[in-house]
Amino acid sequence: MQIKKSLIAEHNDLNCSEHQRRFEWASTRIANCDSIVARVAAFQITIPSWALGTGGTRFGRFAGSGEPRTLLEKIDDVGLLHAINRSCGSISLHIPWDSVDDAYSVRTRASSHGLQFDAVNSNTFQDQPSQPLSYKFGSLSHVDKAVRNQAVEHNIETIRQGELVGSKALTLWLSDGSCFPGQIDFRRSFERTLESMKQIYRALPADWKMYIEYKAFEPNMYSMTVGDWGYSHMFASKLGKQALTLVDLGHHLPSANIEQIVAILMMEGKLAGFHFNDSKYGDDDLTVGSINPYQLFLVFCELVRGMDEQKMDHARDLGWMIDASHNVKDPLEDLLQSVEAIQIAYTQALIVDSQALFQAQEASDPVAAQEVLQAAFRTDVRPIVAEARRRAGGALRPIEFFRSMNVRANLIGERGSLTRSTGL
Amino acid sequence: MQIKKSLIAEHNDLNCSEHQRRFEWASTRIANCDSIVARVAAFQITIPSWALGTGGTRFGRFAGSGEPRTLLEKIDDVGLLHAINRSCGSISLHIPWDSVDDAYSVRTRASSHGLQFDAVNSNTFQDQPSQPLSYKFGSLSHVDKAVRNQAVEHNIETIRQGELVGSKALTLWLSDGSCFPGQIDFRRSFERTLESMKQIYRALPADWKMYIEYKAFEPNMYSMTVGDWGYSHMFASKLGKQALTLVDLGHHLPSANIEQIVAILMMEGKLAGFHFNDSKYGDDDLTVGSINPYQLFLVFCELVRGMDEQKMDHARDLGWMIDASHNVKDPLEDLLQSVEAIQIAYTQALIVDSQALFQAQEASDPVAAQEVLQAAFRTDVRPIVAEARRRAGGALRPIEFFRSMNVRANLIGERGSLTRSTGL
Amino acid sequence: MQIKKSLIAEHNDLNCSEHQRRFEWASTRIANCDSIVARVAAFQITIPSWALGTGGTRFGRFAGSGEPRTLLEKIDDVGLLHAINRSCGSISLHIPWDSVDDAYSVRTRASSHGLQFDAVNSNTFQDQPSQPLSYKFGSLSHVDKAVRNQAVEHNIETIRQGELVGSKALTLWLSDGSCFPGQIDFRRSFERTLESMKQIYRALPADWKMYIEYKAFEPNMYSMTVGDWGYSHMFASKLGKQALTLVDLGHHLPSANIEQIVAILMMEGKLAGFHFNDSKYGDDDLTVGSINPYQLFLVFCELVRGMDEQKMDHARDLGWMIDASHNVKDPLEDLLQSVEAIQIAYTQALIVDSQALFQAQEASDPVAAQEVLQAAFRTDVRPIVAEARRRAGGALRPIEFFRSMNVRANLIGERGSLTRSTGL
Amino acid sequence: MQIKKSLIAEHNDLNCSEHQRRFEWASTRIANCDSIVARVAAFQITIPSWALGTGGTRFGRFAGSGEPRTLLEKIDDVGLLHAINRSCGSISLHIPWDSVDDAYSVRTRASSHGLQFDAVNSNTFQDQPSQPLSYKFGSLSHVDKAVRNQAVEHNIETIRQGELVGSKALTLWLSDGSCFPGQIDFRRSFERTLESMKQIYRALPADWKMYIEYKAFEPNMYSMTVGDWGYSHMFASKLGKQALTLVDLGHHLPSANIEQIVAILMMEGKLAGFHFNDSKYGDDDLTVGSINPYQLFLVFCELVRGMDEQKMDHARDLGWMIDASHNVKDPLEDLLQSVEAIQIAYTQALIVDSQALFQAQEASDPVAAQEVLQAAFRTDVRPIVAEARRRAGGALRPIEFFRSMNVRANLIGERGSLTRSTGL
Repeated sequence: MQIKKSLIAEHNDLNCSEHQRRFEWASTRIANCDSIVARVAAFQITIPSWALGTGGTRFGRFAGSGEPRTLLEKIDDVGLLHAINRSCGSISLHIPWDSVDDAYSVRTRASSHGLQFDAVNSNTFQDQPSQPLSYKFGSLSHVDKAVRNQAVEHNIETIRQGELVGSKALTLWLSDGSCFPGQIDFRRSFERTLESMKQIYRALPADWKMYIEYKAFEPNMYSMTVGDWGYSHMFASKLGKQALTLVDLGHHLPSANIEQIVAILMMEGKLAGFHFNDSKYGDDDLTVGSINPYQLFLVFCELVRGMDEQKMDHARDLGWMIDASHNVKDPLEDLLQSVEAIQIAYTQALIVDSQALFQAQEASDPVAAQEVLQAAFRTDVRPIVAEARRRAGGALRPIEFFRSMNVRANLIGERGSLTRSTGL
Repeated sequence: MQIKKSLIAEHNDLNCSEHQRRFEWASTRIANCDSIVARVAAFQITIPSWALGTGGTRFGRFAGSGEPRTLLEKIDDVGLLHAINRSCGSISLHIPWDSVDDAYSVRTRASSHGLQFDAVNSNTFQDQPSQPLSYKFGSLSHVDKAVRNQAVEHNIETIRQGELVGSKALTLWLSDGSCFPGQIDFRRSFERTLESMKQIYRALPADWKMYIEYKAFEPNMYSMTVGDWGYSHMFASKLGKQALTLVDLGHHLPSANIEQIVAILMMEGKLAGFHFNDSKYGDDDLTVGSINPYQLFLVFCELVRGMDEQKMDHARDLGWMIDASHNVKDPLEDLLQSVEAIQIAYTQALIVDSQALFQAQEASDPVAAQEVLQAAFRTDVRPIVAEARRRAGGALRPIEFFRSMNVRANLIGERGSLTRSTGL
Repeated sequence: MQIKKSLIAEHNDLNCSEHQRRFEWASTRIANCDSIVARVAAFQITIPSWALGTGGTRFGRFAGSGEPRTLLEKIDDVGLLHAINRSCGSISLHIPWDSVDDAYSVRTRASSHGLQFDAVNSNTFQDQPSQPLSYKFGSLSHVDKAVRNQAVEHNIETIRQGELVGSKALTLWLSDGSCFPGQIDFRRSFERTLESMKQIYRALPADWKMYIEYKAFEPNMYSMTVGDWGYSHMFASKLGKQALTLVDLGHHLPSANIEQIVAILMMEGKLAGFHFNDSKYGDDDLTVGSINPYQLFLVFCELVRGMDEQKMDHARDLGWMIDASHNVKDPLEDLLQSVEAIQIAYTQALIVDSQALFQAQEASDPVAAQEVLQAAFRTDVRPIVAEARRRAGGALRPIEFFRSMNVRANLIGERGSLTRSTGL
Repeated sequence: MQIKKSLIAEHNDLNCSEHQRRFEWASTRIANCDSIVARVAAFQITIPSWALGTGGTRFGRFAGSGEPRTLLEKIDDVGLLHAINRSCGSISLHIPWDSVDDAYSVRTRASSHGLQFDAVNSNTFQDQPSQPLSYKFGSLSHVDKAVRNQAVEHNIETIRQGELVGSKALTLWLSDGSCFPGQIDFRRSFERTLESMKQIYRALPADWKMYIEYKAFEPNMYSMTVGDWGYSHMFASKLGKQALTLVDLGHHLPSANIEQIVAILMMEGKLAGFHFNDSKYGDDDLTVGSINPYQLFLVFCELVRGMDEQKMDHARDLGWMIDASHNVKDPLEDLLQSVEAIQIAYTQALIVDSQALFQAQEASDPVAAQEVLQAAFRTDVRPIVAEARRRAGGALRPIEFFRSMNVRANLIGERGSLTRSTGL
């Protein structure tokens, strides 16, 4: 299904007068409104290919319908999102689920939607049918060198496939670890993992980055080899400049202060970027901003400040991706809500009065600091985000537009109702 | 594969002299040793039919081999465990995974192993292929009465199947809840659930019990309709005497004091029994006693004391079941370890000097209370548990025996390596 | 220090034109704006007498200055807050810290500020110098009947003092519990506590309520006798209609779904009211709304819906109190921020489109439900809250006004810098 | 109060025959029993000076009696413990609570008990009466350089005092952090802290170590500048070889895998040592081994393995200290229980069959690995620990001996009942 520009224009016309009033009001209240609109419009969020299908839990999966059946259809779905909100300008592939057999078609299809290819993801947390050796007891950390080699080779192949489409980063999420005390030797596992990572790092093109994601638990339930930011940072430091730490909002122990981790990693020049989602208990992979939008805002405050202090380009210099699981929502609607939540948090962070905040900090005045932060957070920035979309050619109200176009019904018509897009 | 008694006898002969020395030593140190051995021998732990296969997580499943393909083979596996440790004398069925099509064969096969049928479990957390309506948005709590009716009917059918094999209890674990704020109306969900439960309760035979299990989170990641013991107890109280609360060790928020919940539920006569497992983060479903054996001991201290004060029969008056997921261990070995851990904790609880503990409590003397509890916990009770097994005809060293018999290799020989026993 | 009305008028004049524009804008966007303003103005939050001084932790306390030295000065401080925001119309006393020796003076002073007396709090978690028996090992649950009697008597005396000033409720927060496994017998502790509570309940005047607060941990670090809402509700049910459960936002295990607890307690007619604060790790007692304002909003959604369905008066039929500890902020500024956060959450809950939410719930449409809730939460309701203050005679910008008046400096001038108001 | 050797001899005579039987039994079952006894006897645990008095919470403190009033009396109390169990051979001072005014007396008194001085602790988390500037908003991280200088000076003074008594390490526990979002700039706080630490590091004698302790939360309730092992390790790496990370068992987020942290820090040669205690919820500071003794054992498995692989001296090359708070137990009894729990865990770790464990790990056999670990943990090693005490001249049953000697009553006689030893 292609979204015609004229349909978006119609939708916007319908909502225009109300939007205009709201945006005008906002622009009289927010300084540098136009420049903020421009920054929000430039800010693009990557959609991972596996987020386009209905997810599940170990207790089962309630299938959705009309989901993409091939990589090209996944690209179409991201293209569809991008047509609606003009903020999903790239896709992240997962190898082998998205094997790039015909790079020309894949790149052409992406170009037709104005999409780029963000980091490629390797998969050594599952066994594939054709695979000689099992990852049941680890991949890069496995006691058996043959298994480690197989995992290293897979990562190198993933880089190769990424090169075919123009990716510039490899994301390494390892499920390696243990379910029981005594199962592994922590130190040897670390050292074997490092050795394997070094082999992959050597195969990394000079203009690529290697993102090392950490996670506290699941699927291993006793220990994870890259269990927190400290381990990830240790690996990244030992590897070299191209290796960086990737933060996923759902990969921490309860109550962790994620914004502090972000600030310190940025200070060290070692933050790769973000996997956005939200959670209440563990790696719940819920819609971004659906549980604790203030935390998301605080994270963006650190990101914006950290990038500004290091003269980084907000839109390009870090990796921004959604990594959620859509178990009870339509995946595309869920992604539209997530992107909007990110944009709102980013906008709120942009309008923080940083001078006033700095003064409050220098004066050890937590009351004033809170006033400054909450003044930004309590501001209704939806008109700014909507205007950014409008100026870029997107729809003023993405969810309403999506529903009014009967997008899902159309996709079911095209693809059928018995589809399954995820490799999970 | 049948375990011949002569093989167990051979194994025991081999280990006899060392065991004899250890047991004699223990019996000089522990009062009423023979009576304790007898109680441990009488204590039987139910094996759920779904625990006989390799489990997985939402990230995948690393298959095991030689797993039971049918209900009869599942019964055989429990029979095998029971032959080895003489402590797995019953099985718990899960409908529809274990549909009892031919009750005579099923009962005959169980009898041939000396097995009984414990509580039957209904399943309204997954959709079955043939099922008209989906449980994606709930079952007993669903907004649509037709879905609720379907779920009620399934539970009544589950009771009927349980009656065919001689079960005396229905276990109700609901995954009903919500993934997002606003998704459901908490109060109406509760009331609809209660109404549905009442219908099931009315269909319950007079000599049956209804176990209401609670769980804090997963698979729903924002709210669970039966989210903690308070909700479960409220449902059970409103339903009547046959309704009781079932405790699963892994179904709590972090750091919950489970032993206190057990004590208070027993005080009220409202504890149904236990689902044993262990966990570090969430419902990790690890081998019983593999993470925090002291907590398991403390739970058993409350159970033993509560049962004794109410003159209950330890072996019969509460439901004892393992509910774990075997992702990286051989399921049968895992179950042997779990049963042994339960027996050890039970034995330690039996040898607590309750008079001394009572005195310490009356004297507000936590130092002395700790000395009493830890004196029991630090005692090596393995010889007692081994002796209980031996007297009942089981093997002195279950894991060693299992491995020496090449049980898994035999099962693979019989059943093949591409098997899958769980419905998950 | 008295806040002259003319000073507030001056402050409001200064900020009037900007406020007027903002409020007019809001009133064009929000339906029934005037009725909402009226409800917000009517909504009063109780200030506990112990929140007027600087708090601390077990590691120490960094004293503040100019804090109230007597009950009359505490009443003055609440009066000061009420003069500024017109929303702190009552005070909650803590016996024996606020012993009412001269009821006439106390009531007269309160009246002069337009203040009422909310629930009185008893204290059996500390030993007082004059007290014959110690609460080190419990109060209402103590093994020694003499200690229990002393604690019961203290509660009855607390009721008596509450009657002197016109309170209508007793808040019972027990720290009873244990620090170590085995220290107490859970069941007997529960039963002794219940017996003690019954004695207090019998002494309760017919038009009083008894609020039973629960807490998961601290100061006891292994078990708490009233450890969660389930225990509190069990006590309250056994006591009778006047006994209700009090919820403190910081008294739960990590990740607890508090809004669900609130909904179910309201369904049962058993919610007493709220102790507001915010927290990241445990009972951190931080400024309301400073860590997770969305959770606060969700709680208010349940409160508003629950009260409306039972035709309750928002302002009067439940108890609303702040219970925070001000370790690094000026206590009065902290309270002004907390009250504003509560008002904002309440206002946002009032503007939720409940019809649309109901439809989304009936349609099992979590996307739509989230849109409805977040539409309310993302609305900038500050102008409504400010207008409610203005109409009631309060200051448009409380913190700014407080600072511009040099309130703290004045209080230090009056009271000195070496003051200490809390009994903690 | 001095413990005469003859009294210990009497006590041991009384318990000798039973002990002898138990130890003989153990020595037939445990390989290299004598060498293990020798290692346990050599293993000494430091007692911090502040652990000799009754602790409390922010809700109050229930005083104990007969507590040491001066540094010399604190040394006497540790001497008393050491006389009883021969395993508390050093004391750790806290400056300024234990200011060493008269080094000769202090050293002489310690020598008379056979005690040494372990790491000294600085205190910049509290304000002292004489102190010009406040640490309310931080110490080494404070925005004001004058405050940082004061904190640096205090640490240098602490080193100086440590030198007077022969200490060889400085323990730096910082409570620096923030209670509210926005209160501090994470990056600048880190950098200022590092700068301050560098000044202290430069003042460190060449044969000293600097221990950097981390803590997730409390007393700051939003962020801690040294919040986890990752931050501590980052500081220690930037400082140099003498700086190491100190692990306190209670300073983590819920469910953290502490044993993995220990293993990786040892791998890097960056583990300073341990502060032992136990906890269920947060930094509960309960008796070591009272909540989760299996976790303690797993930590010791990593410690023993790590030290052996690096040819370290178990008794000397890492710092071993108890850091608990005794709120409801007699502090000396609590410490005796804690020391015994540490010794038991250490002994259990020593008897792990490391060859078998290694083989299980190399074979990816978690069942076997668990059998190996639990075989050690389930062994009753109390006779070995008792024998180690006996050979070193201590009492077979410390708590029994302590009570039979009426130690506390004697101390109350000497010191009075209204004493307070802690600076908290």
